Amino acid sequence: MSDWENIVRLTTPYTPGEQPRDKDIIKLNTNENPFPPSPACADVLRTISAADMRLYPDPHATELVRAIAETYSVKESQVFVGVGSDDVIATAYLTFFNSERPVLFPDITYSFYDVWADVYGVPFEKIPLKEGFHIDPEDYVRPNGGIIFPNPNAPTGVLEPVETIERIVSANPGSVVIVDEAYIDFGGISCLPLIGKYDNLLIVQTFSKSRSGAGLRIGYALGNEKLIRYLNEVRFSINSYTMSRFTIECGAAVMRDTDHMKNTCSKIIRAREHAKNALSRLGFEFPDSKANFLFVTHKSIPAKTIFEELKKRKILVRWWDKPQINNYLRITVGTSSQMQKLTDALTEIISGSI
Amino acid sequence: MSDWENIVRLTTPYTPGEQPRDKDIIKLNTNENPFPPSPACADVLRTISAADMRLYPDPHATELVRAIAETYSVKESQVFVGVGSDDVIATAYLTFFNSERPVLFPDITYSFYDVWADVYGVPFEKIPLKEGFHIDPEDYVRPNGGIIFPNPNAPTGVLEPVETIERIVSANPGSVVIVDEAYIDFGGISCLPLIGKYDNLLIVQTFSKSRSGAGLRIGYALGNEKLIRYLNEVRFSINSYTMSRFTIECGAAVMRDTDHMKNTCSKIIRAREHAKNALSRLGFEFPDSKANFLFVTHKSIPAKTIFEELKKRKILVRWWDKPQINNYLRITVGTSSQMQKLTDALTEIISGSI
Repeated sequence: MSDWENIVRLTTPYTPGEQPRDKDIIKLNTNENPFPPSPACADVLRTISAADMRLYPDPHATELVRAIAETYSVKESQVFVGVGSDDVIATAYLTFFNSERPVLFPDITYSFYDVWADVYGVPFEKIPLKEGFHIDPEDYVRPNGGIIFPNPNAPTGVLEPVETIERIVSANPGSVVIVDEAYIDFGGISCLPLIGKYDNLLIVQTFSKSRSGAGLRIGYALGNEKLIRYLNEVRFSINSYTMSRFTIECGAAVMRDTDHMKNTCSKIIRAREHAKNALSRLGFEFPDSKANFLFVTHKSIPAKTIFEELKKRKILVRWWDKPQINNYLRITVGTSSQMQKLTDALTEIISGSI
Repeated sequence: MSDWENIVRLTTPYTPGEQPRDKDIIKLNTNENPFPPSPACADVLRTISAADMRLYPDPHATELVRAIAETYSVKESQVFVGVGSDDVIATAYLTFFNSERPVLFPDITYSFYDVWADVYGVPFEKIPLKEGFHIDPEDYVRPNGGIIFPNPNAPTGVLEPVETIERIVSANPGSVVIVDEAYIDFGGISCLPLIGKYDNLLIVQTFSKSRSGAGLRIGYALGNEKLIRYLNEVRFSINSYTMSRFTIECGAAVMRDTDHMKNTCSKIIRAREHAKNALSRLGFEFPDSKANFLFVTHKSIPAKTIFEELKKRKILVRWWDKPQINNYLRITVGTSSQMQKLTDALTEIISGSI
């Protein structure tokens, strides 16, 4: 061991889902959208200037920020952008979760939340979910240094009503509440209208799911102007230019194509509801997901077995070797045809096992 | 003031140089390359799949990392990539500058170094430069929690010999030394060969200057495998997917076109040496820059006046209202024709003022 290793920051990183290169695989493991992004993305590839790549991008990413502000009818000063919603949330941790009191989040949730707390040295406390994987807002009425949860929650897909969120936000004027709405466009109701009423509510969304842009790396936060100003001050203290020229231009064009987003989300919602019926018939149980994935457990076959059997059949879903959830699979909702192949494979696996 | 503001992290951000939208401006203020990037960049725009943007990129950016490793004849495990060299350095601060002892850097240098120290709550100490803006390596032989400086230094352009760097690195086995070689391709000698000998030396380079890719947002670090592993662990604890699909593919192609980089650098070096003569004749003094900029002061006219007069003539250079350097201008070296226009404007300003 070298001397300098004594002062290195040691962490246990988040493990992202597998990204196989084999194009034959039916990839239902990282909640990507099965449909391509808006055709506006291809237009930008055709028209953007390669020569201009020599120049720094606009550090404020104004064009992208404006497209987001106009889409959600908020001011530009209420929009923060980053390199995917993970970058946005990491910056928000650094900015707002900055006290000795613990950050609160559910015990079953996005597994990056405790990683960020650890890397930035912030205490945290996991709050057990209640019946049906629901959040009880009263559990979040206690001293804390910040609150974060996704709505719908991941990996459960369970949506909380706006009233639950309002109760949490209004009970915590002394800390910032981050609602991670990565999956909100698949049938949830956004708590965006609350940002005018509560200056401690930050809403995070992403291009990676409903906008079919995981490869673009764009996330954004919406909130009170003060929240956004603080976030930008921290961001400009780390990296002045986070968004590339291509990302800004392509992101703005993709954001403006709301019709494309709504159409693809409708198709995914239809495929999800159809899959719910098919999976029920096969003996699976699951909370009622409002996201682009299902969190399923089978009454007789272990999740790990199903995960491995699906993998043999070139269908990739997500399974975590973690207490509480190790008998569950998170299955991304793909196209109807992909979901049919999934159902066929599951039928085969289940009939072979019984 | 709202209650939650009591726990916000307060910072004083770095101020990047102006990025005007007016294409008529001769932009010599942010050290961009006046030549377009390798034609490989346009090829990628033509051939990359817009549809695949729905998928997450490779979190390890393997294709880009491999292109860099092959270019510098190092292992892939010796390469770290980030969203510009600022992102790389910020991650390195968080990873390695993690003790109670102060981080050391020169008093005249890249003004982001103290911003990163502040935002991450790390103590620091600025070490005065010596005669001719040179670093005295003996000044860095003292207890510290890390050392960072650019070579050539910015904004002075002064290059230190490899021996100076080796003295600093070898005297500090207990901390990591980061050498920011953003400008090394404009005539400097890289200390890359030292990474095989010292496991506490991290070299940072960028696509933004010699590779004409400021708009792409790519920086990278080269070092011992252990250093790179620690950096990646912290990076994967913040954001799994920092590099977009476009960035990875375009970056790899641009990196492999070493000829294009060398040709454009030669042109810039010629324009720089020519400009040194012209500026000397006009009464400017400056250290002997080995970067793509000149750090100049005039014997009779205040830098601020020249800055403003140039701006009126649509020529943008960089001036800082800071003690020690407020009578200096940092002028990016552009094309010969841009440098001729600069010289003409300076001739006019100087003859008008005397």
